[in-house]
Amino acid sequence: MKRKDYIAKHLKSLIGSEKVKDSQDFCISYSYDATPTGGKGIPDVVVFPETSEDVSKILSFANEELIPVFPRGAGSGLTGGAAPTTGGIVVTTEKMNKILEIDEDNLGTLVEAGVVTYNMQMEVEKRGLFYPPDPSSYKYSTIGGNIAENAGGPRCVKYGVTKDYVMQLETVFADGTITNLGAKTVKSVAGYNLKDLMIGSEGTLGIITKAYLKLIPAPEAVRTAMAIFNKVEDAATAVAEMFKAKIIPTALELLDKNSIVAVEKYAKLGLPTDAEGLLIIEVDGYKEIVDMLIEKALQVCKKAGAKTIKKASNEKEREEIWKARRQLSPAIVQLKPKKINEDVVVQRSKIPQLIKETYKIANRYSIMVVNFGHAGDGNIHVNFMYEPHEEERVFKAVRDLFRFTIEIGGSVSGEHGIGFMKKEFLPLEVGKALEKMIAVKKALDPNNIMNPGKIFDI
Amino acid sequence: MKRKDYIAKHLKSLIGSEKVKDSQDFCISYSYDATPTGGKGIPDVVVFPETSEDVSKILSFANEELIPVFPRGAGSGLTGGAAPTTGGIVVTTEKMNKILEIDEDNLGTLVEAGVVTYNMQMEVEKRGLFYPPDPSSYKYSTIGGNIAENAGGPRCVKYGVTKDYVMQLETVFADGTITNLGAKTVKSVAGYNLKDLMIGSEGTLGIITKAYLKLIPAPEAVRTAMAIFNKVEDAATAVAEMFKAKIIPTALELLDKNSIVAVEKYAKLGLPTDAEGLLIIEVDGYKEIVDMLIEKALQVCKKAGAKTIKKASNEKEREEIWKARRQLSPAIVQLKPKKINEDVVVQRSKIPQLIKETYKIANRYSIMVVNFGHAGDGNIHVNFMYEPHEEERVFKAVRDLFRFTIEIGGSVSGEHGIGFMKKEFLPLEVGKALEKMIAVKKALDPNNIMNPGKIFDI
Repeated sequence: MKRKDYIAKHLKSLIGSEKVKDSQDFCISYSYDATPTGGKGIPDVVVFPETSEDVSKILSFANEELIPVFPRGAGSGLTGGAAPTTGGIVVTTEKMNKILEIDEDNLGTLVEAGVVTYNMQMEVEKRGLFYPPDPSSYKYSTIGGNIAENAGGPRCVKYGVTKDYVMQLETVFADGTITNLGAKTVKSVAGYNLKDLMIGSEGTLGIITKAYLKLIPAPEAVRTAMAIFNKVEDAATAVAEMFKAKIIPTALELLDKNSIVAVEKYAKLGLPTDAEGLLIIEVDGYKEIVDMLIEKALQVCKKAGAKTIKKASNEKEREEIWKARRQLSPAIVQLKPKKINEDVVVQRSKIPQLIKETYKIANRYSIMVVNFGHAGDGNIHVNFMYEPHEEERVFKAVRDLFRFTIEIGGSVSGEHGIGFMKKEFLPLEVGKALEKMIAVKKALDPNNIMNPGKIFDI
Repeated sequence: MKRKDYIAKHLKSLIGSEKVKDSQDFCISYSYDATPTGGKGIPDVVVFPETSEDVSKILSFANEELIPVFPRGAGSGLTGGAAPTTGGIVVTTEKMNKILEIDEDNLGTLVEAGVVTYNMQMEVEKRGLFYPPDPSSYKYSTIGGNIAENAGGPRCVKYGVTKDYVMQLETVFADGTITNLGAKTVKSVAGYNLKDLMIGSEGTLGIITKAYLKLIPAPEAVRTAMAIFNKVEDAATAVAEMFKAKIIPTALELLDKNSIVAVEKYAKLGLPTDAEGLLIIEVDGYKEIVDMLIEKALQVCKKAGAKTIKKASNEKEREEIWKARRQLSPAIVQLKPKKINEDVVVQRSKIPQLIKETYKIANRYSIMVVNFGHAGDGNIHVNFMYEPHEEERVFKAVRDLFRFTIEIGGSVSGEHGIGFMKKEFLPLEVGKALEKMIAVKKALDPNNIMNPGKIFDI
């Protein structure tokens, strides 16, 4: 019997044949995620577990037989986190999609890993509660995937990232052991914090099957505004000054000149295409203070040189302002046939320096760069746009960008993770800590079956 | 040469003799911490490193020679975290006490591990910034110790615990490797989150030498009030109802009848000694909203049955209210010659159940129990007060308390850690995750030199 058939047959007997797919169609469909370069291997089977016990059986079997396992949420990752690197088993959590509990007394919700983040958010918002993390993919990405990548999003400036909302994780380790990590209580210091070790480990240490998430009361009111600058440096300065002035906005998004031009061409929003920088500012909180907060934020923008200010006076105008950001991704792909979207992050005060450098790099390799993103976090999405024949130059540009980012004390990834796309640069950033990461990996997954070829090679 | 002398001589040649103390006086002084049972061993030497390189040299030597190492901040821990379990080397960070940077642009501060938390807080507050975690020991405990134990405090209801403010950690691992874990940027998902693994690991994985901490803008205004209840269950209900009403107080502290009686006897604050429950409520934020917030909180208290409400109208009255909480520790030690202070934590909605059970347990063993603490976190300090001859019964009571806490989904420690005091109960709470914790310990400290005999035995 071929190995592929052996694996499929065995898995069918373990968890039921309806949960195991091994046709060519299925295997090819699950051989890539949203990463621009595609995947690197075609799995032998795709399994659809429905319970933690199913996951445990799959992993025990894979661990005994040394079969690579590739965990998968919605496959919306951008660094290859869910894309197989070889044959093996893709474990998708899409059938584990139940919201098990919304606890209004304790402000928490227990969900299965395959729940789509947006679906959970809608359910809790009905009860006046709020789960802030909002990665761009939130309408289709899953909580399990968000946790595995420690996803962020625009609102994370004020509210923090996914990690800040995970209280307890049910995790199945490589040997099939089912564990509960963390606690449903607000605090707990009982033993090692393996919960936070799992968060952002990109499926290389185990599979997350359930999560108990912290919720907060929904903010009463929101105010949104846009500020337009002649110079992108002025917009970047406004970002740094805002925090110095002790204003913590909910979201603070930056668009540079190429972004403004692209989105204006695509969506006709009436933006001035000669402007070099645009900020979208959102504040929220009690209704008594949001007007004061947005005023203070806009004063900072004016002082930094904003030439136009636009405040939303109702939900429709708010939507209009956000369109400039939300239409960006579809807009910029019109510019060139290919793009690489990097999500480097620096300290806020270093944003002006970073943006300037991206232009220098683009110039150096004669390619187009479009910068936008979560400036309030120092997290800029640097998009190199290119023709297929320019690819080699683009890879060089990416390398220069990463090197510069690390040089000024930044990180190569604010929210997309390392996957197989950024492995080369991880040692530059983390130095000797890499040995310790590898030691932890070997301790928890001694046979290296969990998502091999991701984050680092061992 | 005796082993003790060999160790001292070698360490003196490595880091300088002025940093190594091996007299009987020193060794005995560093053989215990604030844990009521005392330590379990007398160290051979006490070392006072001044740099991360010193720490690295000490650990490399200890690792090669298989000498136990006991890291120490201010020795204010309550579960034996800093108390030696055998001979070996006590490494105290008290000479590494410099604030290296306060970055007002990026809202962060870089400190050495031995900085006293309060000293740093005073420095950043001068600049309008705020470091919220406030363990009771904050006037003498160190940042390094706070991080090693993941310390909490009253303000953590709203602001979170120590972990929520640590962005980057310089850590020396058992083999002497100096690493930087985490990032100075607001976000980073580059590799495994070893930073959060270190936090709360109680010195068993390495020694923290520096920390870059997140700061936030200081709140503009504070309001404080006290609510007194006939029944402790009503006070506990008010706590749960407050969060259901979507009010997140800065602090929400509970005192039960024995606490009220003890503190009134000791400090003469005019508290009604027939009351069974007392809440101290504090809210903070923008000056426009704090009056509204405290009003809402007090309405919840009234609805839950508060018979007396007292609002502070100035700083002096605020201090008066807080006295009831701050004088508690000195007050209750007047009650009996010995005490065991446990810091179990449950979901907020389960506080009434927990408090009721503590009375049942105290009754069962005919001992005195005094409950107070961070009710807003579900974190109750359950103090068993006793005469020396009652000790055996008290240990039984503690066991019953832990078992019950775990049974209702709580955690045996909200902020004090496991140390050697709660090792017996850790497996009951974390189950199979314990194997994985031990695997991580063995990976990062294969010779088990770091704080052996703490958290678990291996």
